[in-house]
Amino acid sequence: MSRNIKLTIEYEGTNYHGWQIQAKGHKTIQGQIENALKKIFKKDIRLYGSGRTDSGVHAFGQVANFKVNTSLSLNDIQKAINANTPDDISIIDIEEVPMDFHSQYSAKSKIYRYIILNRQAPSVRDRNFCLHYPYKLNLALMRREAAVLVGRKDFRSFQASDPRSSYRDKNTIRTVKNISIHKRGDYIFVDIEADGFLYKMVRNIVGTLLEIGRGKLPKGSMEMILLKKDRSAAGDTAKAKGLVLLKVLYS
Amino acid sequence: MSRNIKLTIEYEGTNYHGWQIQAKGHKTIQGQIENALKKIFKKDIRLYGSGRTDSGVHAFGQVANFKVNTSLSLNDIQKAINANTPDDISIIDIEEVPMDFHSQYSAKSKIYRYIILNRQAPSVRDRNFCLHYPYKLNLALMRREAAVLVGRKDFRSFQASDPRSSYRDKNTIRTVKNISIHKRGDYIFVDIEADGFLYKMVRNIVGTLLEIGRGKLPKGSMEMILLKKDRSAAGDTAKAKGLVLLKVLYS
Repeated sequence: MSRNIKLTIEYEGTNYHGWQIQAKGHKTIQGQIENALKKIFKKDIRLYGSGRTDSGVHAFGQVANFKVNTSLSLNDIQKAINANTPDDISIIDIEEVPMDFHSQYSAKSKIYRYIILNRQAPSVRDRNFCLHYPYKLNLALMRREAAVLVGRKDFRSFQASDPRSSYRDKNTIRTVKNISIHKRGDYIFVDIEADGFLYKMVRNIVGTLLEIGRGKLPKGSMEMILLKKDRSAAGDTAKAKGLVLLKVLYS
Repeated sequence: MSRNIKLTIEYEGTNYHGWQIQAKGHKTIQGQIENALKKIFKKDIRLYGSGRTDSGVHAFGQVANFKVNTSLSLNDIQKAINANTPDDISIIDIEEVPMDFHSQYSAKSKIYRYIILNRQAPSVRDRNFCLHYPYKLNLALMRREAAVLVGRKDFRSFQASDPRSSYRDKNTIRTVKNISIHKRGDYIFVDIEADGFLYKMVRNIVGTLLEIGRGKLPKGSMEMILLKKDRSAAGDTAKAKGLVLLKVLYS
């Protein structure tokens, strides 16, 4: 009997060309897990992710599902995938879901976290999982400016001006449900929940927020940039290594 | 005027043959930092560590000091060392100390932390900084057995039976000031504070505690092992990658 298996996945994106299988020879996370599934179930199995993450971007809670006819227990499937994937990919949770569940289409929203280490000394332990940003930041101002982004808006100014047009959406309207900027020790977390994200949207928002927080862009910049609907208005793209897909939310 | 500079250092030991400079060609943390000092100050400078850490062992708070005649600010020295060491070594604090301060001889005690990930799924983010141990553990029993080790005792049973006799102490009496075993989420931390540690002592204690916690060694084992004063009585040596030099304490 066919079963629909939902995986929650933690991965470090450093050594991958993103989540999604692309041209041959490029290592991707989806590719690594599909290879493991093929070894375990002796057939090609398509893995459906909640969406792609870019090259170098991490996940603490990516979700993907696949359908398979097997009598293996969930626990054994989880162990087998973990045993057959590299140690920068880990299935941290597994459950059986109704056959009509689809990781991408059933998702209500996603939360991305951008991690900033805001002190002079770089971190060894988190060096691949944060942006080291040693400059003084005005968090209160960053919070006020970020609040402008919440709601159903046209985020064209924050879509990457990437030549690969397949990555660009014509419909650039998204609903940002929440943005929180909080500090824990020397770390600053920018959490953005939205019903969908444009290509490099979080990194472009964070890059802009950092310039605002550092005083390189004046108060009111975020609203002005949003209204311009032009990528060149916003700040630099923050590095991929600080970005983490934290959670995918389902109803 | 000569100044005595104290560094607090975070490092990942994975890619090093421990802290201390040894035979030529072996990468060590002390070696990397001394190389940086040579570049910055254009002369050989000896770095005194609080003690060596073994191959693969990490530090979140190793302490070392060196003497130098310079007018550079502490901030500039810290930045310069960080700029001239690989990203698995970071000077996280720097201060000027009296000329008679010595990282090793002035130290009152050290705290080592052993990190155990106690769940089925391995961690991606902490994969080099913990022992993945998916078996059920009796923490209450582990705490009771560990308490036997606190005090001034002969820890010969926990000294490595390593053929390199230079690593072995004849005097195997140490004072363990505190052992705490606490759980945070899926992580278990074993923190041991002592006035000194024998070669591989923490890893041998933790290996034994794990066997006790898992039920492979009976209640009362720790006391029995301690009294035997024989390495073969204790459990296996826990892997280096879970061990971190957390803090060096000075009066």
